[in-house]
Amino acid sequence: MVKTAAIITIGDELLSGDVVNTNATWIAKRLYEGGVSIRLIATVGDEIEDISRLIHFCRDLVEWIFVTGGLGPTHDDITREAIAYATGRKLTQNEEAQALLIPRFGDGKYTLKLTELPEGSEVIDNPVGAAPGFIVDNIVVLPGVPAEMEAMFDLIVDRFTGKAPDVRWLTLPKYEVEVADILSEASRLFPDVKIGSYPQWGEKLKIRLSSMNPKRLDEVLEYFRKEGLDV
Amino acid sequence: MVKTAAIITIGDELLSGDVVNTNATWIAKRLYEGGVSIRLIATVGDEIEDISRLIHFCRDLVEWIFVTGGLGPTHDDITREAIAYATGRKLTQNEEAQALLIPRFGDGKYTLKLTELPEGSEVIDNPVGAAPGFIVDNIVVLPGVPAEMEAMFDLIVDRFTGKAPDVRWLTLPKYEVEVADILSEASRLFPDVKIGSYPQWGEKLKIRLSSMNPKRLDEVLEYFRKEGLDV
Repeated sequence: MVKTAAIITIGDELLSGDVVNTNATWIAKRLYEGGVSIRLIATVGDEIEDISRLIHFCRDLVEWIFVTGGLGPTHDDITREAIAYATGRKLTQNEEAQALLIPRFGDGKYTLKLTELPEGSEVIDNPVGAAPGFIVDNIVVLPGVPAEMEAMFDLIVDRFTGKAPDVRWLTLPKYEVEVADILSEASRLFPDVKIGSYPQWGEKLKIRLSSMNPKRLDEVLEYFRKEGLDV
Repeated sequence: MVKTAAIITIGDELLSGDVVNTNATWIAKRLYEGGVSIRLIATVGDEIEDISRLIHFCRDLVEWIFVTGGLGPTHDDITREAIAYATGRKLTQNEEAQALLIPRFGDGKYTLKLTELPEGSEVIDNPVGAAPGFIVDNIVVLPGVPAEMEAMFDLIVDRFTGKAPDVRWLTLPKYEVEVADILSEASRLFPDVKIGSYPQWGEKLKIRLSSMNPKRLDEVLEYFRKEGLDV
């Protein structure tokens, strides 16, 4: 399975705050549940140069990159071109994509725009809409329409994921500073358990424990109790 | 005013899909309404090296970087340290921050953790909670708790923003391919108008026009009508 991934969502509408980025959260959750560690989630506009730079940045950081958005037929859909540019590949008519789309949508110029993919791409069929997705090098590219993206992600998710880490959430009626010492010590004693601390409004603190080894979570809880926390 | 900005939100809980990134959307909207073009929104975990790399990436891309999250007192709050590392500055006790916090919270070690900022930082007071924000070089750093972040952003927003672009949304009962030619031609004829096309579920298309010059939006609408669109 894949150990590390980044998620890139493309679209000016996400940068202006008009649309909340639910796609990134959805993919992050699915990958995380499958044991993949997400190192970066990023949104960039419909600009070839910006997308390409971000792809290069992610390639130095993670094993796999998941990209959504900008695969439609209009002038502002430039993701295919940007990925080709970023990977140093030509855009060419993909025969597999043509075989999927032309029988359904004809061979008009917009269909042919959708089937023009970076050379050597593996095609991901779109069971819900038109634009096919593709995989090239270590980049998985899916449309931005959530129903399409989700259906297509489900077709390929098994290739990337494995066992999920165990997660426990605790809520404590405490200010963060009251338990900071205990958390810090627990973090030192249990290096294989990730301990997150998220202050909520007022005297309420959420603690998140995660580990690939569920027994260790029990040990952390035992340690918390020993330190006087009611968990 | 500032022309380009990036927004970085820090926190493992955002990468696992447990929490939707509302802070980034909120800041993006406020900056966008003030005429600032957002080039990148990114989320990264509580890792000094990842945060530092992302800061360097953003510095090549935009004028100002807005960062939220990881300013609390616990072991996983490493944003102060990461920004110091990324900017090549020392972390030192900030006297202005001490003067704000010690009268309210005492001089315990957790208060002193909050007041340890990159050398030369300008302090942003936190009227809602404890952790102060700061500005260093071209980086604005705010807490991740939304109520704190929002109140503090309001204290400084005027420094960065100016006139907003005019925006119009249209909804057309069309598939995207039916109007793609018209949109593409309009985009060529009106280069100072940004035209976004967002397919919705079924036969419904949202079009977003934006420009610093409202007259040009009227001209685009006139062009659409001439081409037979009911707008």
